[in-house]
Amino acid sequence: MVLIKASSMIKKMEGGTIATPAGFQVAGMHTGVKRKRNDLGMLYCDVPASAAALYTLNVIQAAPLKVTKESISKERKLQALIVNSGNANACTGKQGEQDAYTMRRAAAEQLSIPEHTVAVSSTGVIGLDMPMNKIIPNIKHLELSTDEKAAAAFNESILTTDTTTKSTCHQITIDGQTVTMAGSAKGSGMIEPNMGTMLAFLTTDANIEPEILQLALKEATDKTFNCITVDGDTSTNDMVLTMASGKAGNESLTPEHSDWEKFTGLLRHTCEDLAKMIARDGEGATKLIEVEVSGAYDDGQAVKVAKTIVGSSLVKTAVYGSDPNWGRIIAAIGRSGADVNAAKIDTSIGPFQILQNSQPLSFSETDVSRYMQNDDVKISVDLNVGNGTGKAWGCDLTYDYVRINASYRT
Amino acid sequence: MVLIKASSMIKKMEGGTIATPAGFQVAGMHTGVKRKRNDLGMLYCDVPASAAALYTLNVIQAAPLKVTKESISKERKLQALIVNSGNANACTGKQGEQDAYTMRRAAAEQLSIPEHTVAVSSTGVIGLDMPMNKIIPNIKHLELSTDEKAAAAFNESILTTDTTTKSTCHQITIDGQTVTMAGSAKGSGMIEPNMGTMLAFLTTDANIEPEILQLALKEATDKTFNCITVDGDTSTNDMVLTMASGKAGNESLTPEHSDWEKFTGLLRHTCEDLAKMIARDGEGATKLIEVEVSGAYDDGQAVKVAKTIVGSSLVKTAVYGSDPNWGRIIAAIGRSGADVNAAKIDTSIGPFQILQNSQPLSFSETDVSRYMQNDDVKISVDLNVGNGTGKAWGCDLTYDYVRINASYRT
Repeated sequence: MVLIKASSMIKKMEGGTIATPAGFQVAGMHTGVKRKRNDLGMLYCDVPASAAALYTLNVIQAAPLKVTKESISKERKLQALIVNSGNANACTGKQGEQDAYTMRRAAAEQLSIPEHTVAVSSTGVIGLDMPMNKIIPNIKHLELSTDEKAAAAFNESILTTDTTTKSTCHQITIDGQTVTMAGSAKGSGMIEPNMGTMLAFLTTDANIEPEILQLALKEATDKTFNCITVDGDTSTNDMVLTMASGKAGNESLTPEHSDWEKFTGLLRHTCEDLAKMIARDGEGATKLIEVEVSGAYDDGQAVKVAKTIVGSSLVKTAVYGSDPNWGRIIAAIGRSGADVNAAKIDTSIGPFQILQNSQPLSFSETDVSRYMQNDDVKISVDLNVGNGTGKAWGCDLTYDYVRINASYRT
Repeated sequence: MVLIKASSMIKKMEGGTIATPAGFQVAGMHTGVKRKRNDLGMLYCDVPASAAALYTLNVIQAAPLKVTKESISKERKLQALIVNSGNANACTGKQGEQDAYTMRRAAAEQLSIPEHTVAVSSTGVIGLDMPMNKIIPNIKHLELSTDEKAAAAFNESILTTDTTTKSTCHQITIDGQTVTMAGSAKGSGMIEPNMGTMLAFLTTDANIEPEILQLALKEATDKTFNCITVDGDTSTNDMVLTMASGKAGNESLTPEHSDWEKFTGLLRHTCEDLAKMIARDGEGATKLIEVEVSGAYDDGQAVKVAKTIVGSSLVKTAVYGSDPNWGRIIAAIGRSGADVNAAKIDTSIGPFQILQNSQPLSFSETDVSRYMQNDDVKISVDLNVGNGTGKAWGCDLTYDYVRINASYRT
């Protein structure tokens, strides 16, 4: 309820970019790490910004994550991010760590800011040494700007096999001040020869302390980025980073602030926007799948069921084939580990109810199959055992997923 | 060590079938539930056999599982199994339960044995009422026999989209007596319009009490059937059933018997044989993948890591493409949840060591890729943190997997 109220006050900014919140500039360029598209990006804030970040849960973590954690731990303030694509700097040992530190130092020197206010991020091939000869000399050629062209160049610089850039920008009013929040993300894409990564960088001019921002980011991420799945794999490089410049001039945001829910609503909205863009652009995907679960024992179990359904290869192929194959949905629910009454499950695909009390209703397969040909396919489940609700997003499993991941050498 | 010793005493029986162990007969026939292949099978033992069974962990369980559990709970003895393919009798409510009881009664009457000594199993479409008019009148036409033709007919009668029948037969000597054990299984195949199921039926003439057999079956299943994955989904109908006639004349087997490990070795060997056949015949599969993990904190964690690797869509597509993409292997290890030292992982693909201390060795991509074109691809991982070992089996993820599961209507 709160979320819907908050959402209704969130204004989408047409043409807004990651550099729209007050204080931020960006740049992106091509250095030759990737063949064609931009591969080096920088985000800069003209004041030290409150910083919050979350990292992959994979115990194998790439060197840039270590360096970024170290930067943030010092003062919880960041002024810049240096990011490259084409090489993940993962499984690169001591040399990889040195390279990540070198990238941080080069960016700091270029911007004349302390090293510990710079975050480092990489995505791309793992296990190959970083092409430092391409990255370092080009850092000084990055031309920071607030204009749309620079933002587009930055958005491109973080992509791997993504087919589109992913960005979002919204505004709300807090304490009579306009607060802007924007984000840029990349999704799970496979590149020669290794793994995909999810990166999301959020900027806002909201005034908020880093510790509070961290809590809010964690909560928003748990209900958005952590609820998408493309193929169940978790990268070594995943990172969600948020910087808040404080330039909007609102009173410092805390859970006691009367507009706290407005702000967390904006943050969640921004994360959800980017999360859905990532899911929709999953490798080989032709459709976005949204699963909404209600009536679960609690919210955690609802999310668990939603993620199990949206992550099922059988459900994903059925959606690809526009096949109202509810048996696969109920089988996924049954193995999710959530508390379920096996005789009380209701399920709908789009507007069509398919199951009541776990048994099939009569429905037109043709109509449901036609609905499933949409770019957006929604599956709703009511477990009828409690009040927990949750959502998850994913994409269909297609021939192209296999092609992209099996035959990259051809 | 014990297993290897035991294995060396296990003799493969060429031409042996599920009806080879003393006391057993089988039958299989076509009744029209499926279009062409046999769809009704029966297994019979001329004495009440010690029975042990394990069922799917999916909380949504099909009606035949309920009936079989009820049968076994009475005396832990079975004399017969009636099984059909083409319809899973799952999500069929009260009618489905009645139908499963009716199948049990019809089989018991035909064989003049008590109802509670009959097990019932079904696999196929879910959510459709059972075609009882096809099944029941044909039970009396099932012609039990010990010959190879009858066994072949039975093996076929349990298949769905499996491309081959799956059976195995071995012998050992216990107390100077020849003990024979055989098995017949079906794998994960998708059928109109729903889910696949794993069924395995084992027969032996060993003399063993049902409670002891149950413990041994659980242990063997945990290391074999529970270590295969085709696409991570769990059916509503999975069942592993074992019947021991006792006709070999050995002294009753218990953990105190001097040949106990010989027997459990045979049981595990039989289960592993069938499990690998199921994995190799996974939907669309072209290759069997075996992952062997050593140096884990304990055996449980080793199996966890092995299953995560063999279940990764990224690893599966890489194997399909004969691509030595070790980044996907290490990423799967990292997200497995096992205790891992991120800097100490060794990995080999077949005879080629790829990673040492988590960093890539120089190896010939051409040679490794050529090795990966085999029908059997082995991945070995040493975590170097303990003495735990474990194995898991799976198959590659191919265009055909998507075709079979997305376009069954065409």
